[in-house]
Amino acid sequence: MERKEFRDLATPAEARAAIDSLSLEGGLERVSLEEARGRVLAARLDAELDVPGFDRASLDGYALRARDTFGADEADPARLEVVGEVHAGEEPDVALEDGQAVEISTGAVMPDGADAMVPVERTDTEGSEVLVRTSVAPGDNVMFAGADVAAGERALGPGTRITPRDIGLLSALGVDEIPVRGRPTVGIVSTGDELVRPGDDLESARGEIYDVNSYTIAAGVEDAGGEAVLYPHAGDEQDEMERILREAADECDLVLSSGSTSASAVDVIYRVIEEQGELLLHGVSVKPGKPMLVGRLQNSAYVGLPGYPVSAMMVFRTFVAPAIREAAGVPEPRAATVAGTMAREERYEEGRMRLMPVGLVEDSNDEPLVYPVDKGSGATTSLAEADGVVEVGPETDYVEAGESVTVRLFSPDVRPPTLLGVGEDDPALNRLLDGLENPRYLSVGTRPGLRRLREGVPDVAVAAGSIDRDIDAEELGRWTREWGLVTQAGNPHEVEGLADLIDRDLRFVNRTTDSGLRSSLEAALSDLAADRDASARDLREAIDGFDLGLRAHESPARKVIAGDADVGLGLRATAERLDLGFVSVDQQPVRVLANPDRTGKESVRELAAALEREFGPEADG
Amino acid sequence: MERKEFRDLATPAEARAAIDSLSLEGGLERVSLEEARGRVLAARLDAELDVPGFDRASLDGYALRARDTFGADEADPARLEVVGEVHAGEEPDVALEDGQAVEISTGAVMPDGADAMVPVERTDTEGSEVLVRTSVAPGDNVMFAGADVAAGERALGPGTRITPRDIGLLSALGVDEIPVRGRPTVGIVSTGDELVRPGDDLESARGEIYDVNSYTIAAGVEDAGGEAVLYPHAGDEQDEMERILREAADECDLVLSSGSTSASAVDVIYRVIEEQGELLLHGVSVKPGKPMLVGRLQNSAYVGLPGYPVSAMMVFRTFVAPAIREAAGVPEPRAATVAGTMAREERYEEGRMRLMPVGLVEDSNDEPLVYPVDKGSGATTSLAEADGVVEVGPETDYVEAGESVTVRLFSPDVRPPTLLGVGEDDPALNRLLDGLENPRYLSVGTRPGLRRLREGVPDVAVAAGSIDRDIDAEELGRWTREWGLVTQAGNPHEVEGLADLIDRDLRFVNRTTDSGLRSSLEAALSDLAADRDASARDLREAIDGFDLGLRAHESPARKVIAGDADVGLGLRATAERLDLGFVSVDQQPVRVLANPDRTGKESVRELAAALEREFGPEADG
Repeated sequence: MERKEFRDLATPAEARAAIDSLSLEGGLERVSLEEARGRVLAARLDAELDVPGFDRASLDGYALRARDTFGADEADPARLEVVGEVHAGEEPDVALEDGQAVEISTGAVMPDGADAMVPVERTDTEGSEVLVRTSVAPGDNVMFAGADVAAGERALGPGTRITPRDIGLLSALGVDEIPVRGRPTVGIVSTGDELVRPGDDLESARGEIYDVNSYTIAAGVEDAGGEAVLYPHAGDEQDEMERILREAADECDLVLSSGSTSASAVDVIYRVIEEQGELLLHGVSVKPGKPMLVGRLQNSAYVGLPGYPVSAMMVFRTFVAPAIREAAGVPEPRAATVAGTMAREERYEEGRMRLMPVGLVEDSNDEPLVYPVDKGSGATTSLAEADGVVEVGPETDYVEAGESVTVRLFSPDVRPPTLLGVGEDDPALNRLLDGLENPRYLSVGTRPGLRRLREGVPDVAVAAGSIDRDIDAEELGRWTREWGLVTQAGNPHEVEGLADLIDRDLRFVNRTTDSGLRSSLEAALSDLAADRDASARDLREAIDGFDLGLRAHESPARKVIAGDADVGLGLRATAERLDLGFVSVDQQPVRVLANPDRTGKESVRELAAALEREFGPEADG
Repeated sequence: MERKEFRDLATPAEARAAIDSLSLEGGLERVSLEEARGRVLAARLDAELDVPGFDRASLDGYALRARDTFGADEADPARLEVVGEVHAGEEPDVALEDGQAVEISTGAVMPDGADAMVPVERTDTEGSEVLVRTSVAPGDNVMFAGADVAAGERALGPGTRITPRDIGLLSALGVDEIPVRGRPTVGIVSTGDELVRPGDDLESARGEIYDVNSYTIAAGVEDAGGEAVLYPHAGDEQDEMERILREAADECDLVLSSGSTSASAVDVIYRVIEEQGELLLHGVSVKPGKPMLVGRLQNSAYVGLPGYPVSAMMVFRTFVAPAIREAAGVPEPRAATVAGTMAREERYEEGRMRLMPVGLVEDSNDEPLVYPVDKGSGATTSLAEADGVVEVGPETDYVEAGESVTVRLFSPDVRPPTLLGVGEDDPALNRLLDGLENPRYLSVGTRPGLRRLREGVPDVAVAAGSIDRDIDAEELGRWTREWGLVTQAGNPHEVEGLADLIDRDLRFVNRTTDSGLRSSLEAALSDLAADRDASARDLREAIDGFDLGLRAHESPARKVIAGDADVGLGLRATAERLDLGFVSVDQQPVRVLANPDRTGKESVRELAAALEREFGPEADG
């Protein structure tokens, strides 16, 4: 078996060129007017009829022959015989002779023989006659057939993306079906024995994870004007994967796969494309995205995306979505990029183009600040925490704080959050956030939250427990929460307090050191150590599980429910919600602290008002 | 019958308040992940499981107990017994004891007993043992269960509009169905005996016109996040209209009607709402839109829109679409407004708020220029020629040229044209335009086209025939067209030339005076008059139909086909395309003239290149 050699990674421009060389076009189809919105007209449409289709009175008045009004004025009116009337929606049943007029209403058909009309305000009637007190020229106050759109006139050009106003024009022309470009169909193949479809049961013990990429990319495909087709999961078997790839290639204009973490799946796809199709490119000098494949299989284009969700999304947005839009005839969405300034320096020295996932937050002047989302690419939440991507060129070693950057949003619908909060995870806080419009809250824990607040990026930080050092921030409000030990329902081990963790053989689950709850626990242990005249370290070491901390406020309780631990660090509120036992240790304050530059920001003021409503004005200070 | 009195027109703010007081909410529904894109989450979603669901190795290497590596370094490695291996997607079949290690691959499940891992690069193997040349702490190189998303953590807040990134998070959490706000259903009732559905046959003689508003407003409703339901046409009979209004009110959250031109239909609707529902508001001080109705019928909200398509669309966009978006939970599209400067002064002195339909064109600096679209509101084409609306307050007498204005686009998909052309209507030009991306061409005729070019708004003007006065413009190219008399197929009247129009009893159809073709015809008649030693005016008056001009280049030919005329003014190209007879009179040049400020604009350069490709370089000069 010969292998093509791809010694050097392709440049991003070469990757774009390779994708552009593939044909993704979806053909033509005809759609009804009701389905036309957003579709792209495939051919020019000329008007097949006049609009209006008849000579139409523009006002209420009298249809007449212009020559009969020659010389008429206020003092010397023309006197015409009224021989009938025409209303809108009626066919005239009279024709005019010299010296005659017909009463006519707005929108009605001009009767034969009439070439102008005079508004009722410029006339008087006398019996069966009308006195016309002005002279008119042929065509006056008449909208002639075709005056709006004339038959044969160019109505809409090829490539027009149909908006409601175009639907108006098509309706006026009586068109109820138009030829449009077909949406490119994009088959999405996900591989890997460990992937499970959302909604199905997950066996975590086997290392199974839910399939994130299929649905995310499908939504991205639809955003770009394509039609996504999800194929059943292929395992890591070559035969099955080949069958599914061939089926997708047969049915779709483009096939996308995202590499599973198991190297064998990637190898199988690589072999299928290389042996049975054409491999144009393997590996691109971009981070993340290096393992990207571009090629052809049967009559379909093929692109292989990285396996990690954030990487897959960024590579999709940067390289694949533009090609789908091009094929669909859909222009780059106008709102797809946002200009902002970097909130802090970001170093980068790898010599590859970097696709940096970033979040956005508005500063006190409503200007977007851009901050890198620093979770690993394996984390699916960084997808939810990032608003888009900044492309950083390979020659760039760092992006400075204050530098202007362009953020390509993950999708045009993405809105930067109105409020960016960081800090402690807390159930009362979650309820408060529900009342705000589009907030983002990163529950990184109290200490990292305060650090980030000092760095100036977030609007607010939420801190639980005592705060070690002075921080330049305005307290918007606070509440108190009761913490302690969460046990199985009914407290079967009869835990009475912290001392039991040290003195008895109980399996404990802690929170991470970033958590304010953990800090309060450590402080309580230090007090206990002082009482016992022992070292705090000895006490900590005597607790089975003390070093292993979990991130969210409910996580230790869930370990207790699962039977993986006897006691977990947690809140009374959590224990009550989950019907578990609870042994109180202490209370701690939870403070909401605002970035002093952002106290005038609308969302911060709304949060302050919500805090006052929920916890009363005494919350301050 | 008592009538509520609405003596004063309501202010626009009162109209907004009245619409806001109606309840348009569409309830809740559940949708699958595949259908979730763009929908609005109805309730907070907390994570129901940890992501990842298991403690996961972050690298390839060895899982072990951190305590066993205490003090290990390059020189003094820890020596552990390798007791098994675990790959991604496998359930570990070993548990670690003190002094043991397990070979593990990225993404695999950490075996019981292990609390950290060390990357393979920091190890060596010796038989069944591994030498670990670094010390690690518990948790090192392990992504713990819940580290990405922890069970119980707040995942997405209520009101989140689901984008692909949110679909990623939902997938990771295994969620395959979410509760979303229902789209408000909007019933659209169109009234008037003269309205015909696009696709059906039109009887122009009876004054029938196609129904523009139903489809345009339906598309606008969908743009705003609502679901449009078209109801069958109601005639002007009270019973039928009442039945349809009641049916729509019963089935929908909001009913919209647009007034027909026949006053009786408006009266009937008014009576139904007033007697059987509740009329909140009748008449708003806004132009156009004065006859707007706001009220309730049964449990539905009701808004009556003006009848003219452009007016209906502007009132819909300004007053109704925001309320539908609010009810759907869809934010104002970011790209829905554009800031630009007025290209010319616009006077306005009526003391009502004015919704001014405007078009957009980019100047030489790519900055949007805004110009009023001055067709009457009855013209459906102004819908296609306008990009949006500028609201002008009642206290404003005029908007100055150069003034900054905000344009509310008719829909977020609306793109200002890349090229704005004005002038003569010509079939060769239409083909040229097809090759450009999103041009707009207003076939206003040669003379108005040149006037507008002098005013500086369009990028190019197209002029046919000789040009009277000097104009400051750059000629991009030209071609020649043959014009003359279009007759029925085979020229049954044996027309030989212009003289026949004067000397014989033939029914003629002319073009409008704005057309360059008409100017050339008049010039040819003047020559003929000189030959005959007669006055041109006498010659013109001798032609039956000379004064009645039609707008588009094909229109006279179509009148000939319809048998309404014997001879029409037209082009050889038109006669050939429509298989008609043709008597040549002369040739005339068609020039494409560029605004001297815009010759550097990309679309203008593209047009110049297309002209050169089509007509050769000799076109210049």
